[in-house]
Amino acid sequence: MELFHTTKIRVRYGETDQMGVVYHGNYAQYLEIGRIEWLRSLGISYQKMEDEGIMLPVVSLALNFKKSAVYDEVINVKTQLKKTPTATIEFDYELTNENGELLSTGNTILVFVSKNTMRPTRCPKYILDKLHD
Amino acid sequence: MELFHTTKIRVRYGETDQMGVVYHGNYAQYLEIGRIEWLRSLGISYQKMEDEGIMLPVVSLALNFKKSAVYDEVINVKTQLKKTPTATIEFDYELTNENGELLSTGNTILVFVSKNTMRPTRCPKYILDKLHD
Amino acid sequence: MELFHTTKIRVRYGETDQMGVVYHGNYAQYLEIGRIEWLRSLGISYQKMEDEGIMLPVVSLALNFKKSAVYDEVINVKTQLKKTPTATIEFDYELTNENGELLSTGNTILVFVSKNTMRPTRCPKYILDKLHD
Amino acid sequence: MELFHTTKIRVRYGETDQMGVVYHGNYAQYLEIGRIEWLRSLGISYQKMEDEGIMLPVVSLALNFKKSAVYDEVINVKTQLKKTPTATIEFDYELTNENGELLSTGNTILVFVSKNTMRPTRCPKYILDKLHD
Repeated sequence: MELFHTTKIRVRYGETDQMGVVYHGNYAQYLEIGRIEWLRSLGISYQKMEDEGIMLPVVSLALNFKKSAVYDEVINVKTQLKKTPTATIEFDYELTNENGELLSTGNTILVFVSKNTMRPTRCPKYILDKLHD
Repeated sequence: MELFHTTKIRVRYGETDQMGVVYHGNYAQYLEIGRIEWLRSLGISYQKMEDEGIMLPVVSLALNFKKSAVYDEVINVKTQLKKTPTATIEFDYELTNENGELLSTGNTILVFVSKNTMRPTRCPKYILDKLHD
Repeated sequence: MELFHTTKIRVRYGETDQMGVVYHGNYAQYLEIGRIEWLRSLGISYQKMEDEGIMLPVVSLALNFKKSAVYDEVINVKTQLKKTPTATIEFDYELTNENGELLSTGNTILVFVSKNTMRPTRCPKYILDKLHD
Repeated sequence: MELFHTTKIRVRYGETDQMGVVYHGNYAQYLEIGRIEWLRSLGISYQKMEDEGIMLPVVSLALNFKKSAVYDEVINVKTQLKKTPTATIEFDYELTNENGELLSTGNTILVFVSKNTMRPTRCPKYILDKLHD
């Protein structure tokens, strides 16, 4: 069972700010790409899950910034499942640059929500099954 | 009949890029705010229109940049209806800074789309009525 | 001494995502506006501080989402200084909708950095003076 | 001489809006990535050019939207140099989805600006040389 996955993201010009580095708010998108690609690496499509009536809104986001990321650099986003999902799913993230230097760490908690009831629901069985392969 | 409306927007830090000015892609949001406030000045809520089944996607966007906008400055967005709406609605925009200097000009064409059919539809009568008051 | 300040932000269309609510990553900008307006309410311009050689990057960002914000709604961002600034400055945030319902809470820590040395530096005296008025 | 280049971009969740498609303003970033990768395909680094004192702000942006792009889809951005650069450089863009359907077309004009003088300057010779290889 692969509990972590690393994906690469190249910093876009429009993601920088006048400090000359990536605007801190844009890291939320980097984490999102990290967990989507983690899901994809398990053979799970987030969009398909949403089409089937399960949404996954973020209920908690935490980021610590150690070193700035700059334009055009390629960031490694390492996404790691923290524990077996229940009605929530929690990830830790580690972002490093091409020299292996730590840029930032993050954590997100998301909740499985049924589109029909708009209420929390348990993690779909097909995700749990993938985690126990 | 008021065919134009001016609204003020303060530039956010996260809207700048490493050139030290507003990232050009962010002007699309400024124009959007301009036309939404133009509608509001006529007593029309864009959200209510969408709730009632009419969406208004952009089909054409054009922007010319004369002078950069900088962080924390207050921009005046002048939005002007170009002609009587049909299935489309067209706006011209003029963005100026607090000294009255021209920052940029823009033009957008949007199309009224029925949510049910996902096909173009005519401009709602209550908008046309407002224009002829 | 006013240790908190409330500012209003109207949700932009481009800030929503396909869940039909504000994309969680966009709250970073709302917090930023909150603390900038907190500074302004003390008579301090963030841009002027940057012009004078002090930058204020975010080193920690935390957000908890209780209730979604939707397009066109006006959010109240209450920004509160957590303690006397040193080389860092910490804020708590409370975001509520027009009905007074809690949308989300946040916390950020920022560090004063000298542009010359690119090293942390103490909070400028003129800010501390404002806090003790 | 390769006058066009195609790059692939996967749509991010945060790039959609409540219409359920990519927010139109986000296409500016897609075009930017297109031209940056066009430059890279010629062996030119935009960042290096900026480091050497030449900036390349956008002075004109035009986009026509034919078909919406949706979350998680991979877009092909075809970037084509329109004519030999002078103090300006002009690109045409064609965005297609994985089925080859046309999503949108774009055009941008950018101007070479010297950081020292903040005045327009001629296209660097090493770019022109690449174009005549």
